[in-house]
Amino acid sequence: MPQGYVLGVGKTRFGPTSKSLPALAQEAIIAALGDAGLTVGDIDAFIVANYLGGPNEGRLHLNSVVAGLMPGTHLPGWRVEAACASGGVAVHDALLSLSRYGTVLVVGVERMSGIPGMQLTRNIGMAGDLDLDQGAGLNFPASYALVAQRHMDAFGTTTRDLELVSLKNHDNARLNPLAHFYHKTVTQADIDAGVMVASPLRLFDCCPVSDGAAAVVISGASRGDRSIPILGSGLSTDAISLSQRTVHTSFIAARNAAASAYEQASVSASDVDFVEVHDCFTIAEVVAMEDLGLCSPGEATRLIRDGVTSRDGALPVNASGGLKAGGHAIGATGVGQVYEVVKQLRGEAGDRQLAKARIGLTHNVGGVGGTCAVHVLGSAS
Amino acid sequence: MPQGYVLGVGKTRFGPTSKSLPALAQEAIIAALGDAGLTVGDIDAFIVANYLGGPNEGRLHLNSVVAGLMPGTHLPGWRVEAACASGGVAVHDALLSLSRYGTVLVVGVERMSGIPGMQLTRNIGMAGDLDLDQGAGLNFPASYALVAQRHMDAFGTTTRDLELVSLKNHDNARLNPLAHFYHKTVTQADIDAGVMVASPLRLFDCCPVSDGAAAVVISGASRGDRSIPILGSGLSTDAISLSQRTVHTSFIAARNAAASAYEQASVSASDVDFVEVHDCFTIAEVVAMEDLGLCSPGEATRLIRDGVTSRDGALPVNASGGLKAGGHAIGATGVGQVYEVVKQLRGEAGDRQLAKARIGLTHNVGGVGGTCAVHVLGSAS
Repeated sequence: MPQGYVLGVGKTRFGPTSKSLPALAQEAIIAALGDAGLTVGDIDAFIVANYLGGPNEGRLHLNSVVAGLMPGTHLPGWRVEAACASGGVAVHDALLSLSRYGTVLVVGVERMSGIPGMQLTRNIGMAGDLDLDQGAGLNFPASYALVAQRHMDAFGTTTRDLELVSLKNHDNARLNPLAHFYHKTVTQADIDAGVMVASPLRLFDCCPVSDGAAAVVISGASRGDRSIPILGSGLSTDAISLSQRTVHTSFIAARNAAASAYEQASVSASDVDFVEVHDCFTIAEVVAMEDLGLCSPGEATRLIRDGVTSRDGALPVNASGGLKAGGHAIGATGVGQVYEVVKQLRGEAGDRQLAKARIGLTHNVGGVGGTCAVHVLGSAS
Repeated sequence: MPQGYVLGVGKTRFGPTSKSLPALAQEAIIAALGDAGLTVGDIDAFIVANYLGGPNEGRLHLNSVVAGLMPGTHLPGWRVEAACASGGVAVHDALLSLSRYGTVLVVGVERMSGIPGMQLTRNIGMAGDLDLDQGAGLNFPASYALVAQRHMDAFGTTTRDLELVSLKNHDNARLNPLAHFYHKTVTQADIDAGVMVASPLRLFDCCPVSDGAAAVVISGASRGDRSIPILGSGLSTDAISLSQRTVHTSFIAARNAAASAYEQASVSASDVDFVEVHDCFTIAEVVAMEDLGLCSPGEATRLIRDGVTSRDGALPVNASGGLKAGGHAIGATGVGQVYEVVKQLRGEAGDRQLAKARIGLTHNVGGVGGTCAVHVLGSAS
């Protein structure tokens, strides 16, 4: 039995913009309602996903901000925050809330451009451990670099494997009009020229800083063919400090979230046709594939080399361009993944439409595996 | 039918402390689990309520921080933020999540002491409107001063009425060992000597800045006499800017949340024996009583003058000392209100135990009425 149905989806372009946070949220909400054929009057509750509204620009209490975009409704509404997994967690929470509310709007939104670099690095670092890691220089690129180094040690993963992830996702983003790097061609020469960020991660191993918003309307009841069933929703957490973990080549929270989503959906990893995963760094896409059980530990790089995860491969990964090239508007990212999967499942993905899209999966991570939300959408029949 | 049962409650003292945010959360969690006779292994999911962890001390992604306090559990967990209503909203969300999770832990936590005054004023102001109000000087004391002035104009409310609220709540806090101002005697002379903060609100019309945490364990099933039924839970929102409202002597979100909670609980305002309301400023307690339908608009001050809302009156309000004297550890406040009502309903409130405590209500507000969560607890029989 589906946990709920996505009735409508909307998304702004991810990337730098002068639009305000409320304006971005409004644009995505209007698009999602329009896509669903609904109006604000059809909504029973709403959830806002956002990560850095407070530290970046002094905006908290965003449920009240969004309430002001829907004058006179006075709906139940709240904000969910779980670092970069805020969006996926909000979708999970929306499904839980269908116990009381018939139709729930989820809007994820983030503004990051215009914040000075050092301040933004500090703010993004709030998703990591304050007491042990951040003070030791383990900011996010450094943390994922550590994961990459461990993965290389354990499985022989190479920088070339990571480059292939970057090239693939940039190639995909060229077909996605809402991607941060839409129409930007990235070549091997560009990658070679990229500065070292945190060894072995270079510039093109890292996702950009994006503004943007995405919204989905979720209901307990389908409204016809364009409604997409959410078959399974899994959520799990882990301790925030890497020093509290025993494994650094895999995220237990992701493995748990996937297992929970598969069980609820009554599907296995082999039933999944395509996935949108949280590639904040190229190594994260490699780890995601293994955590989701799409292959055995250490096997993801072979699939990447063989083109299996390309748009025309047997298991396309991040056909949207992913976070790497599609952009990472933090609070919006997990909601944007659901947008993408719904578009593919409906056959509405335009130039990037996949040939086989019956069951799709989203994988949204907060911090360095501190939170993971996984959703399985589509039709199991 | 109850929406859920509170199996256990725990709370730290509210007030300045050198304890860290995770340490405060842990103290409340251990107390709540102990009170419920449960261990971490009995919990299926958790929600963290917090407002200023990011701006105050660079801590976001608090669900992962709390996950680290429960090693190896990898539970589903997330953070809810709705300004000063974060705690009440988290309780509402926990009830929704019982659709999937059997037993849910809610922990509200906040650290505010040690933040320089101007910075703290700015951070607290993030719950208000960034675009219109804050830039015009409408910080929180000013906003509630405006509400007070309008209430005085409309209903003849006096500064003496507000002083009576302050004296009552300070008198109550003297009997509450976990109150910010436990054992502090406040006299009329103290009130008279208080500086003007924002006319007509003086120092003793304003709640203090508190650190603290509170936790509750909520389940779909009772575990016996000490389990307290949550009969109704209501949540509503309003636009964030006062310029977007037509009424300033009442909060529509509070009226809606109360109506929703009463309807779900199948009780009316006259069935309620005692209440814990969001008296961030003394005028807020006056408005709360009217919004909750405990009296007609403009009638609250008469009840206050007649002693009806005193500890030995017919309708005790804020027997804990409220936010005013019990303290306001923002993210913990709404959870702490549930703690207090449960203690009273069980007859475990010690020196401050009320004579008649069968049905109690909590009222938790975010911003200047931008969010309100209301809960009705007890036994309707």
